[in-house]
Amino acid sequence: MAPDSFTGWMTHIQQRTEAALECLLPDTRHAPARLHEAMRYVTLGGGKRVRALLVHAAGELVGAATDNLDRLAGAVEMIHAYSLVHDDMPAMDNDTLRRGKPTCHIAFDEATALLSGDALQTLAFEVVASPMPGMEPAIQLAMVQRLAQASGHAGMCGGQGIDLYSVGKALSQPELEYMHLLKTGALIRAAVMLGALAGRPVTTEETDALDHFAKRMGLAFQVVDDVLDCEADTATLGKTAGKDAANDKPTYVSLMGLGSARQFARDLAADAFAALERFGSDADRLKALASYIVARSF
Amino acid sequence: MAPDSFTGWMTHIQQRTEAALECLLPDTRHAPARLHEAMRYVTLGGGKRVRALLVHAAGELVGAATDNLDRLAGAVEMIHAYSLVHDDMPAMDNDTLRRGKPTCHIAFDEATALLSGDALQTLAFEVVASPMPGMEPAIQLAMVQRLAQASGHAGMCGGQGIDLYSVGKALSQPELEYMHLLKTGALIRAAVMLGALAGRPVTTEETDALDHFAKRMGLAFQVVDDVLDCEADTATLGKTAGKDAANDKPTYVSLMGLGSARQFARDLAADAFAALERFGSDADRLKALASYIVARSF
Repeated sequence: MAPDSFTGWMTHIQQRTEAALECLLPDTRHAPARLHEAMRYVTLGGGKRVRALLVHAAGELVGAATDNLDRLAGAVEMIHAYSLVHDDMPAMDNDTLRRGKPTCHIAFDEATALLSGDALQTLAFEVVASPMPGMEPAIQLAMVQRLAQASGHAGMCGGQGIDLYSVGKALSQPELEYMHLLKTGALIRAAVMLGALAGRPVTTEETDALDHFAKRMGLAFQVVDDVLDCEADTATLGKTAGKDAANDKPTYVSLMGLGSARQFARDLAADAFAALERFGSDADRLKALASYIVARSF
Repeated sequence: MAPDSFTGWMTHIQQRTEAALECLLPDTRHAPARLHEAMRYVTLGGGKRVRALLVHAAGELVGAATDNLDRLAGAVEMIHAYSLVHDDMPAMDNDTLRRGKPTCHIAFDEATALLSGDALQTLAFEVVASPMPGMEPAIQLAMVQRLAQASGHAGMCGGQGIDLYSVGKALSQPELEYMHLLKTGALIRAAVMLGALAGRPVTTEETDALDHFAKRMGLAFQVVDDVLDCEADTATLGKTAGKDAANDKPTYVSLMGLGSARQFARDLAADAFAALERFGSDADRLKALASYIVARSF
């Protein structure tokens, strides 16, 4: 696949995701307008939409209907957006800049940030549970379950908790990996799985292969984030750089050094690619996306 | 039905709900232990379990399996518990006492309160989406959708937002009613509807009748709460009394006076009862529960 066609696809999916979110998010003409404005402020117009791209790339592999993938991608992006809003709050990371804009509690207020995060999480589940053409209720129910498992106490929230309670502690690499497996990895795996469930029936072996791919890519994504956080300045990143180091939070860079962290990301990506072999050229999009994710910084 | 048998049933369901929540909530032996402790702290061992009782009473009316009702009741109580944790935070009501215990951000910390509320919401959806014996996936999917609609921007969160943005404003009675219809009414309606969906198939007329009942009872419940908040002292209530008046928040008592508010609750209950006529003695439990809810204070 030529780089140009992948870039074109990526822009196309990013635009579709934006349009889908525009429709799915509540209207600001309805009360409470300020809450609905905040929900739109934090979800629209920003982000690389990595999770939405993963939903679509995995969905393409199984021939899923694009309109259904738009809704699923929107739901996963809502979960991601809500987690950012709550993580940025003074009680957590106390961050003031996100995607190049003031964070929600700065642009609005803390109560609105709290509530808009809550309502975005709820809306994500409402969207996944709402009727989708040609989709079996049992499949949609499995998607709700999968998204909830990925987002909750044994997934994203759990990882956030481990992160929170390990500030200033020396984590081993396995401990750091477990934290990231939950904090960012779980939702990335859910994104791939929601896409993969939306098309033709998949075998257990296929599901396992896609999940292995997603698990390794989720970790690679985090390692790359740590590398970027170390290297980039605030302007390039669109969020406050060097924050983790300043907060004495363990990162792959602090644990293994910059060069080894880069190599680790490459190794993870190679392992992830190997899991896609069985799908042949059907997995080309997913592979191109994975390459893009790992190549962001080097 | 004799009062004794209703009291016995109520205690029985409260105990079942507690036991169900014990099983459904995460184990504190798993990391992050502090998050899981907080989730259990705010959900277990407290509250009247009004929403759980409504799930069971409505479920009984349609012959639903009690084990399934336990899970649905647990999920609704989790949503309720999460909303209390977030509402009590300094950014919202800044309350220090709930159900006679220090609120979550006091007993733990603000970050843990934020995260545990988030994870409780997620777990509620996971529970409703998890396989239940004899339950059609399409029905469970409808339950997820219903619970999400009731909890989100057009339900509980929306009501909370309207409440937040109307502090210090003079609300008319219709405005106050709309706020409560969303803030507390939506989840009470969802509790009744989840129970009603869990048994024999129900007709549209039956659904409408149960929803009318739930809508009126939800409002009555709020009016009674306002009356109690005005009358009771902090010890009896188990939360800080007179808080709404102190915060200059509009209440039914501030709007219509104590006597009229009491009468309004009675009128609402009478209207709610009338909607149950079609079910004959099948609705006895639901009627007894409704009487109990309205009679709490007078």
